[in-house]
Amino acid sequence: MEFIKSQSYEVHLEELAEAALRQHIAKSNYSKVFVLVDENTKKHCLPLFKKKLDIKADAIFEILSGEIHKTIETCSTVWSLLSDNGGDRKSLLINLGGGVLTDLGGFVASTFKRGIDFINIPTTLLSMVDASVGGKTGVDLGSLKNQIGVINQPQMVLVFPKFLNTLDSRQIVSGYAEMLKHGLIKDAEYWKSLKSENDFTDAKCIKKSIAIKNDVVTQDPTEQGIRKILNFGHTLGHAIESYCLENPDRETLLHGEAIAVGMILEGFLSHELKGLSKLSLQEIKDTFLTHFERVDFNAEDIKAIITLLKYDKKNSHGDVNFVLLQAIGKAVTDVKVPVDLFHKAFAYYKE
Amino acid sequence: MEFIKSQSYEVHLEELAEAALRQHIAKSNYSKVFVLVDENTKKHCLPLFKKKLDIKADAIFEILSGEIHKTIETCSTVWSLLSDNGGDRKSLLINLGGGVLTDLGGFVASTFKRGIDFINIPTTLLSMVDASVGGKTGVDLGSLKNQIGVINQPQMVLVFPKFLNTLDSRQIVSGYAEMLKHGLIKDAEYWKSLKSENDFTDAKCIKKSIAIKNDVVTQDPTEQGIRKILNFGHTLGHAIESYCLENPDRETLLHGEAIAVGMILEGFLSHELKGLSKLSLQEIKDTFLTHFERVDFNAEDIKAIITLLKYDKKNSHGDVNFVLLQAIGKAVTDVKVPVDLFHKAFAYYKE
Repeated sequence: MEFIKSQSYEVHLEELAEAALRQHIAKSNYSKVFVLVDENTKKHCLPLFKKKLDIKADAIFEILSGEIHKTIETCSTVWSLLSDNGGDRKSLLINLGGGVLTDLGGFVASTFKRGIDFINIPTTLLSMVDASVGGKTGVDLGSLKNQIGVINQPQMVLVFPKFLNTLDSRQIVSGYAEMLKHGLIKDAEYWKSLKSENDFTDAKCIKKSIAIKNDVVTQDPTEQGIRKILNFGHTLGHAIESYCLENPDRETLLHGEAIAVGMILEGFLSHELKGLSKLSLQEIKDTFLTHFERVDFNAEDIKAIITLLKYDKKNSHGDVNFVLLQAIGKAVTDVKVPVDLFHKAFAYYKE
Repeated sequence: MEFIKSQSYEVHLEELAEAALRQHIAKSNYSKVFVLVDENTKKHCLPLFKKKLDIKADAIFEILSGEIHKTIETCSTVWSLLSDNGGDRKSLLINLGGGVLTDLGGFVASTFKRGIDFINIPTTLLSMVDASVGGKTGVDLGSLKNQIGVINQPQMVLVFPKFLNTLDSRQIVSGYAEMLKHGLIKDAEYWKSLKSENDFTDAKCIKKSIAIKNDVVTQDPTEQGIRKILNFGHTLGHAIESYCLENPDRETLLHGEAIAVGMILEGFLSHELKGLSKLSLQEIKDTFLTHFERVDFNAEDIKAIITLLKYDKKNSHGDVNFVLLQAIGKAVTDVKVPVDLFHKAFAYYKE
């Protein structure tokens, strides 16, 4: 299986990834190699990483897992660890974890001594298909997701589908939501095959999803145009995710769970405003509700979520811009949506 | 007087700066314009800024002045202020202050929502001649200077020598040290004229210093080669500055005061290792000691400063690299210095 070429780096899968990493380290003359893990990847992925890759790490840094720790305070901890362990401009940071860890580790590396090299090894399905390309790094500011960050590219990304064996099914299905999104925004055929695929954690499916995303981000690295289509389901999805994270009475939703709701809601908006057919809308709703339990939202929840919307970092000049679908596989960007439609969308979701 | 063209932006001086800013804002369609000040620039520079420039700011954010506040915590405060005041990706941050403020404000802007536009208006002589070009942004990590940051360029830099009337003489002389450095590393004639210049705050001198620095940084934006010469006096100077900042028994040195000591020390190393003449060394020492009071260092101080050296961010693989002079106006980079010479250099400084 060949690698996927992204902006300045390559995404390698399976066996080829092992060789690629060894070669890169052999030629790069790094002063030190550090590995960032959380308590989960330390337990489940680090042993496999050590065994497979035979890399001598100068130090392993452990942070706590979870969106709630994706903060500037955690960055300060890792910056200090890098400094205390003699990290310098020629050091390498390998981020071994899910999207929270690779986003945070990428930001820490991009800003330590004004930027050191980093390599991402995503360990969840979501981070393999979503965070592996695009160069977005960053952390949250309070309950506002990814408010602080930079666009910067890793040296390489290594994808080992084997790591997925260590995940529970909720985590796996969360990644599936992003894969389905790739079909919805860009490739109707992929959507069709993926929604009836039994083993979507297969390297072939993962590679297809990465390739779709990579195709979009390499055309538009700084999100001026087409890249915005990746935000389908995310405008409402992010607001729902933030709301649940912030609210102690609610169970935290995984990212994929939140955007699954977002895609049904924004599918409804697409039907109302952009001509997405009733049939396609129903197909989207049915597919997501087959894999994701319906979430309860009362009137107060909905009001709070709509308030959070205006803080989403994609909004400019106070307007809320949406990516909507004209059809499955065909997205349009920069659609302004009247507020009353949000309430109707939630009503449709509940039906 | 013409502007100085840097990487992606321009440095404008005096009256032309006013017109340049007005034009830029008129054409840029910013959603909001924010101004960052500290308690000093709020009092002394903001009224002039408002009067001269006639810019309607949506909000003014105030931080505390001084290197001790150049922290990630201060960044968090400004990020939150941006967010709470409706800052979005199309917002502009104008940094009105000295190097601490423009470094910090530049980092905050470069990382807020993965980067918004910023404009620097340096208000001290040091920041006019030093921080105005080069794109370095960042904050300190504990006592270690500029450990966290990115390289990113402002939209423009505006230099108003009038702001210097609000500074005390200690601040002015601090900037003079960097100007003298520009002569030492690149232009013997400028060194000669500048060291006997009565009014070095004149726009002509400031422009010459910016032009020298700009010439260097545009050749080498990411500090792979020639840009390193700007670090003359800074390797020991930064360690001295950090040490005095950290040590409650010592008076804090201004940046220029610390690098003035650093340039005498590194001048001595240059004489020992790179053939700088005895006469030139004496000329350097005499010039700096005419303008900067001799600082006392005991054996314990010197030991601690040498320990700090190895944490300087320019060091790689544990070696300490110096920029030294072969002659006035001619610098060489990547010189490794044996530790015993540091002690001799301090002894020469004390003589």
